[in-house]
Amino acid sequence: MEQRLSMVTLGVRDMARARTFYEEGLGWALGDGVEGRVAFYQLGGMLLGLYGLEALAEDAELPLADLKPAANFGGTTLAYNVRDKATVDATLQEAEAAGATIVKPAQEVFWGGYSGYFADPDGHLWEVAFNPFWTLNDDGSVTLPAKT
Amino acid sequence: MEQRLSMVTLGVRDMARARTFYEEGLGWALGDGVEGRVAFYQLGGMLLGLYGLEALAEDAELPLADLKPAANFGGTTLAYNVRDKATVDATLQEAEAAGATIVKPAQEVFWGGYSGYFADPDGHLWEVAFNPFWTLNDDGSVTLPAKT
Repeated sequence: MEQRLSMVTLGVRDMARARTFYEEGLGWALGDGVEGRVAFYQLGGMLLGLYGLEALAEDAELPLADLKPAANFGGTTLAYNVRDKATVDATLQEAEAAGATIVKPAQEVFWGGYSGYFADPDGHLWEVAFNPFWTLNDDGSVTLPAKT
Repeated sequence: MEQRLSMVTLGVRDMARARTFYEEGLGWALGDGVEGRVAFYQLGGMLLGLYGLEALAEDAELPLADLKPAANFGGTTLAYNVRDKATVDATLQEAEAAGATIVKPAQEVFWGGYSGYFADPDGHLWEVAFNPFWTLNDDGSVTLPAKT
């Protein structure tokens, strides 16, 4: 299995609400999809997908009894890295204005960076972070330092 | 907020077990990180992170009472797209041999593709899919068709 990821799919309880957040709130451009059923967004060389939470469980053939609310913490977080601390603050403000809930206000963190978290309307967690040890390239891609 | 994603972080209950799965099982190369605490893998222009499940909840300042087991379905899935159906089958076999649990055997799916799901040792869901409508570039990146 090659070392890559094609898509992250977020299960959502209200597709219209979720699309409004990402498209009108954050200003992201909708890609190809099936109106009302699934929405895809091109993120560099990979994709973000929005899909009904129950439909996503069914797609994986998991019993609905195993379906946990996405609210709060389902074991996965997404990170959006920026180039300086001020942009962390500005991005969290932008997300909050778009309808996100600030879960953790931006602050200095133990590993030497500065970050905060917001939850999207379905509770999916996004960390907004400035990490002085990683290279954020001009195209927004991230490069790890060489392994020490 | 630009239309991009820097990292997906998976909360894990046993870092050594998770690293063995991704590194020895799937053959992925470890990037820079902090031995025993966090592991990063470069996936094209973004990163996969492994971090202790409780530490991840604490990092987001979520009460531990909100921490749900990652097992089964926490509202998010990851997708790994390949170029043909045979590679879906082969990848699922490879993952199972590496210690993954097959959640849904590979099959024709309603949207016109062919896919199956496996769960990593912490229950994080990976869909392995052949999607005839998407372009999988030589470098493994995915491009959506133009919006119709």
